[in-house]
Amino acid sequence: MQLFYSPNITPNALCTLDAEESRHAVRVLRLRQGEELHVTDGRGSLYHCRILEADDRACVVESIDSEGPMAKADAARLHLAVAPTKNPSRMEWLVEKAVEVGVDELTLLNCDHSERTFLKTERLQKIALSAMKQSLHLWLPTINPAVSLREWLHSPLPTPHSPLKLIAHCEADKPRTPLADVLKPGADAIVLIGPEGDFSEEEITLALQLGFQPVSLGPSRLRTETAALYAVAAFNLINDSTL
Amino acid sequence: MQLFYSPNITPNALCTLDAEESRHAVRVLRLRQGEELHVTDGRGSLYHCRILEADDRACVVESIDSEGPMAKADAARLHLAVAPTKNPSRMEWLVEKAVEVGVDELTLLNCDHSERTFLKTERLQKIALSAMKQSLHLWLPTINPAVSLREWLHSPLPTPHSPLKLIAHCEADKPRTPLADVLKPGADAIVLIGPEGDFSEEEITLALQLGFQPVSLGPSRLRTETAALYAVAAFNLINDSTL
Repeated sequence: MQLFYSPNITPNALCTLDAEESRHAVRVLRLRQGEELHVTDGRGSLYHCRILEADDRACVVESIDSEGPMAKADAARLHLAVAPTKNPSRMEWLVEKAVEVGVDELTLLNCDHSERTFLKTERLQKIALSAMKQSLHLWLPTINPAVSLREWLHSPLPTPHSPLKLIAHCEADKPRTPLADVLKPGADAIVLIGPEGDFSEEEITLALQLGFQPVSLGPSRLRTETAALYAVAAFNLINDSTL
Repeated sequence: MQLFYSPNITPNALCTLDAEESRHAVRVLRLRQGEELHVTDGRGSLYHCRILEADDRACVVESIDSEGPMAKADAARLHLAVAPTKNPSRMEWLVEKAVEVGVDELTLLNCDHSERTFLKTERLQKIALSAMKQSLHLWLPTINPAVSLREWLHSPLPTPHSPLKLIAHCEADKPRTPLADVLKPGADAIVLIGPEGDFSEEEITLALQLGFQPVSLGPSRLRTETAALYAVAAFNLINDSTL
């Protein structure tokens, strides 16, 4: 199955795919008028559509059947907040993999030890979109632009529930709980992952004061993007458990 | 801490680092005669050394103190057997990440639906070595050259214990257990991950006949390398649990 994306699609109506999706459907996959395809709105709905105009810059489709919005397979939401790596391709890789495995929101954090404080979120959003389609997810994750960790910690949480609030720092002499011990099926989580030089002492203290729980990600010294993906895999594994 | 590698190092003796390690120590990090560094033999031992000759092609060190061989932080062994991806850089990425997170042996599998049946194991071994040093592991994982899945399934298991034998296939209409439900702390595991087009029916049947248990990796459609890393993260997460 090949999945397309259009945020504007509605049941039993016409919809014009954007230039990128039109090019993919018509020029790359050579779909023609009358052929059928699947489109998601990125908000949990799946539309079964037929092509009315196979225009490679503005492909017009008609939705003939729809399902949803469907609940996510695991109802719990994961918000990953991570300091951008010095090498931007490592972040791009992280976004692709995290979206494939399953993440709902991603925030870029500027930390005391950050070596990079800017990354184009448009490019990351594009990678997220492509990974969503690849992995057949119907939910497009939100990617928030870079914000200072301190500012972000003081802003109110947008989630209606009270999620697990976790900070994965590397200070082995401070008490930390293994991530596997704190994650629970069905529980939303926010996980903070620091930059190459770790969070500063002040950042860790502030996060703990604000109710974040310190966790460890095992005995290895992990790169930032590896640590972040490890947390995403852990969250999804625990939520996939039936025990 | 910066970790170097030499398979030949022994306690209280001289050792010449190879050209790559010598270049890194002397030319990149500019270490000089009399300075100290850490070297692992890749078999669980860590040597505290002093530089006797800061030659950037054949750096001579003297081991002044050693620890080990140390047991792995988690005693369980993971053997990942995975079909190479069409795009070799995705495999290189997998090796880097899997070694960082923790894997003991990696076998490349030629499957019925493989689009690639050859990959230079020397290059992957080099990436594994670099990831071992980066993550401060003292065990260098073994990377086995590509072998046909059928042949490999019929060869005897080299491990002394009887590991969990798991095959992660994508046939959602066949019974599969979530990976989280079958992994157990302290239990060795062999995990089979198929190519882009999944294992063939015959391969799945054969693996099941030979005692492999079918597992699922969650509701997402994962790329081969993502599925493999998900399994590696899951294994390490479960072994890091203290519950």
